[in-house]
Amino acid sequence: MVFKKITLIGRSPDSFDDAVDDAIDRATDTLDRVKWLEVEELGVEIAGVENREYQAEVEVAFELEE
Amino acid sequence: MVFKKITLIGRSPDSFDDAVDDAIDRATDTLDRVKWLEVEELGVEIAGVENREYQAEVEVAFELEE
Amino acid sequence: MVFKKITLIGRSPDSFDDAVDDAIDRATDTLDRVKWLEVEELGVEIAGVENREYQAEVEVAFELEE
Amino acid sequence: MVFKKITLIGRSPDSFDDAVDDAIDRATDTLDRVKWLEVEELGVEIAGVENREYQAEVEVAFELEE
Amino acid sequence: MVFKKITLIGRSPDSFDDAVDDAIDRATDTLDRVKWLEVEELGVEIAGVENREYQAEVEVAFELEE
Amino acid sequence: MVFKKITLIGRSPDSFDDAVDDAIDRATDTLDRVKWLEVEELGVEIAGVENREYQAEVEVAFELEE
Amino acid sequence: MVFKKITLIGRSPDSFDDAVDDAIDRATDTLDRVKWLEVEELGVEIAGVENREYQAEVEVAFELEE
Amino acid sequence: MVFKKITLIGRSPDSFDDAVDDAIDRATDTLDRVKWLEVEELGVEIAGVENREYQAEVEVAFELEE
Amino acid sequence: MVFKKITLIGRSPDSFDDAVDDAIDRATDTLDRVKWLEVEELGVEIAGVENREYQAEVEVAFELEE
Amino acid sequence: MVFKKITLIGRSPDSFDDAVDDAIDRATDTLDRVKWLEVEELGVEIAGVENREYQAEVEVAFELEE
Amino acid sequence: MVFKKITLIGRSPDSFDDAVDDAIDRATDTLDRVKWLEVEELGVEIAGVENREYQAEVEVAFELEE
Amino acid sequence: MVFKKITLIGRSPDSFDDAVDDAIDRATDTLDRVKWLEVEELGVEIAGVENREYQAEVEVAFELEE
Repeated sequence: MVFKKITLIGRSPDSFDDAVDDAIDRATDTLDRVKWLEVEELGVEIAGVENREYQAEVEVAFELEE
Repeated sequence: MVFKKITLIGRSPDSFDDAVDDAIDRATDTLDRVKWLEVEELGVEIAGVENREYQAEVEVAFELEE
Repeated sequence: MVFKKITLIGRSPDSFDDAVDDAIDRATDTLDRVKWLEVEELGVEIAGVENREYQAEVEVAFELEE
Repeated sequence: MVFKKITLIGRSPDSFDDAVDDAIDRATDTLDRVKWLEVEELGVEIAGVENREYQAEVEVAFELEE
Repeated sequence: MVFKKITLIGRSPDSFDDAVDDAIDRATDTLDRVKWLEVEELGVEIAGVENREYQAEVEVAFELEE
Repeated sequence: MVFKKITLIGRSPDSFDDAVDDAIDRATDTLDRVKWLEVEELGVEIAGVENREYQAEVEVAFELEE
Repeated sequence: MVFKKITLIGRSPDSFDDAVDDAIDRATDTLDRVKWLEVEELGVEIAGVENREYQAEVEVAFELEE
Repeated sequence: MVFKKITLIGRSPDSFDDAVDDAIDRATDTLDRVKWLEVEELGVEIAGVENREYQAEVEVAFELEE
Repeated sequence: MVFKKITLIGRSPDSFDDAVDDAIDRATDTLDRVKWLEVEELGVEIAGVENREYQAEVEVAFELEE
Repeated sequence: MVFKKITLIGRSPDSFDDAVDDAIDRATDTLDRVKWLEVEELGVEIAGVENREYQAEVEVAFELEE
Repeated sequence: MVFKKITLIGRSPDSFDDAVDDAIDRATDTLDRVKWLEVEELGVEIAGVENREYQAEVEVAFELEE
Repeated sequence: MVFKKITLIGRSPDSFDDAVDDAIDRATDTLDRVKWLEVEELGVEIAGVENREYQAEVEVAFELEE
């Protein structure tokens, strides 16, 4: 019943909320029993992308199988 | 004229902005002379709620009555 | 090819995303070669403004001319 | 449905676990709907007490009544 | 015998020491058994006050009644 | 000879020591050459469990195979 | 209506309050619309000065012209 | 009447409480007027010891002789 | 297009630069699309190795496959 | 030509400046070649002393003899 | 006699030492009376450059003209 | 079998690696059973020295004699 945390960086051309949702979608697509996430960092990439890219670094917690 | 700060966690099924507004609404409903707030933590509860619950931990500053 | 970082506080009556965009707009209006930004603090001014003012303190990185 | 967090310092002559439990007991005696706590600091008072006093500073989160 | 900590912001037109004393005075006027305080932040408000206002954010610890 | 660190959250109904041991047991069951761990956070879940659940977030370091 | 923050280190042979005031004086001499400052670090230079030099590193916030 | 703080790392094969007590015992054996300690870090050494070694890094404060 | 970050500790008998390169080499050998890394901690192991071992704890970011 | 840093807590019934000076006086009485100090924490002891005791935890740097 | 601090990011294809020197060179080319610098962050850009680019974010302190 | 940690600042006209080695040399010359060190701060003194002086503040851990 141990939890594990991994660090993802979600990205969106639109908003921070979408960047966080992007990370949640990825986590729930590939992991069972995702429990919660904590936002660690918010940033915006401005050069090297077409417009602006909102980025959210998050820690995702999920329950390991026994 | 001393200020006091308390810690609230606003919650919303929709966005972090709404979670912060939820905390401000609660603070201004029950306290006079609310001055400002600082966001301390952002997180998302994924298990144990119907969909996703955006949470914002904030420190709210208000002026104490003399 | 050295980068420099400056600290701006964007402000918006509507949302944190708009407050961050406000700071990016200011940076790209007056600086060439803006690269990225990092969000340092989020807060809301409640007293002394008409409604609520969302504020985002950001560090903006840009490339110095040689 | 807003949560509030308060800071307590539990104390015990025996162990850190007992000091944390001391804070939980106090919180659940006087507050309904206590949700979780986070340990902020651990310390030991050595002078000015009979033996050693283990202290645990914790943040306790509970749900406010509407 | 649990302690509780609250966060106050003392203010003074003269000095940081006076701002801290302002917070202590408020705490000891309204609370019994105040034990100690820790300075969390020092700042100066410059706009919106007549001259300069020194501010000290402090955490005040006191013993709860049983 | 590179080390890797992962983040686990051990859980126990009894004590923080048991919560840490829970995470160590999980790590050594599934990983070879576990070297050490660092405690990152201690907390207690109070609502949503039968009694109290002590939780310890730890970073576990182990040596990668070449 | 964007704010900018810069980092100054005020210095005084007498006290920390004077070191902070030294930084405020410099900021208000050369910048319009200075809003507030936050103390980041306090230190004392002992060698290499005649007596003791109190130093206060501060972040000064001011409003940029449009 | 000045206090001094030193950093010790207590160690125990059994528990964190014993590791902290190990550091207190050492401090009070060799220093007079030990006042309090603050826990800075908790960790467990797993490789290179027979079983597990619980370690507690603490800052110990004591009063200097005049 | 989500990024993931993992934590590695590179090691070298010669220098911190080599310890960082050691971690980069490991990451690029086993992962595609490595983007950047951030240095988290630098340390030196002195006992239990032949001479001195320079260690660099780094966070490595790479792009996940869709 | 290596520097060493030690941690002292100066104390004064009057002010934080005096508490810092108290620590400097102690350091320069017993150590040669004191270079600078950095303020780590400011606090006030209220219970257990006659009036208020201002305390300043500082790190003092000095040059070791070869 | 006030100091000011600015944040630069030096870059080098070879080493962190060279990245720091790169920032110092830029600072001393364009500013008089540079006093010292503090390293804030070390990182390596791996994608989007020919090989590896070592980056050092530093705060540079210099004395303002009166 | 308690460990103790002290804080040294190694200095070198050449590089950060040499500054760290300078601190290790000093520690191992005067202390038995030095175990490891952690780098706390890196900086460069530019004024008041002939060229540039690289400085590394480190915490050195060693085993106390029983």
